[in-house]
Amino acid sequence: MSIDIVNLTDKFSSITKQWDPRIVAQLNDYHLKIAKIQGEFVWHSHPETDELFLVIEGSLVIHLRDGELKLETGDLCVIPRAVEHKPAAEQECQILMVEPAGTMNTGDAGGVRTVEETTWI
Amino acid sequence: MSIDIVNLTDKFSSITKQWDPRIVAQLNDYHLKIAKIQGEFVWHSHPETDELFLVIEGSLVIHLRDGELKLETGDLCVIPRAVEHKPAAEQECQILMVEPAGTMNTGDAGGVRTVEETTWI
Repeated sequence: MSIDIVNLTDKFSSITKQWDPRIVAQLNDYHLKIAKIQGEFVWHSHPETDELFLVIEGSLVIHLRDGELKLETGDLCVIPRAVEHKPAAEQECQILMVEPAGTMNTGDAGGVRTVEETTWI
Repeated sequence: MSIDIVNLTDKFSSITKQWDPRIVAQLNDYHLKIAKIQGEFVWHSHPETDELFLVIEGSLVIHLRDGELKLETGDLCVIPRAVEHKPAAEQECQILMVEPAGTMNTGDAGGVRTVEETTWI
């Protein structure tokens, strides 16, 4: 039985590109993804799934149509399915996401920020 | 839209009992649970699901029938469905788990360590 141990610090140090989520683990048909983000993303929603954000390091703002969520290191939240949101970070922020395999980063919005195929790191 | 922000440090500080997993978030039909553990758990497996462990603070050993996994703070691993494992920690360790709602802590083993109903914290 070979089971990988994934060190998040190591994985983040291998990421050089912002807004480029990478898969670090699979749990049944779910993926754990990590990303470095800075600046503003696009408004989008995921009609078919909730999405979990956990801040590993930094400050994350998730804009909602009727407010915003401010998350610091060690904070997590779940954006319910179909709820429009726009992640943003003033300084580079390291986040971990949990969502079904195949969930697109831009959800129903598409566009140039879409990562067509999320790869493992 | 009211979305809770969960701070893991706060949640862990509210946990007074070891080996008593508590739910901190729900993502579709999955739960994120946290627990403080120390000492050895029981051998068990989950025939129906993989199980993800992320060490938030401390050192975790997951014994397998053919070896062991040693995880430190920031390490994660996925124990595949049906694989027998026995978590252990010399010193108190804070862990986060992701698994389908309703997954029993002792899996197929049952016994006195079983938490019949995992509650939110």
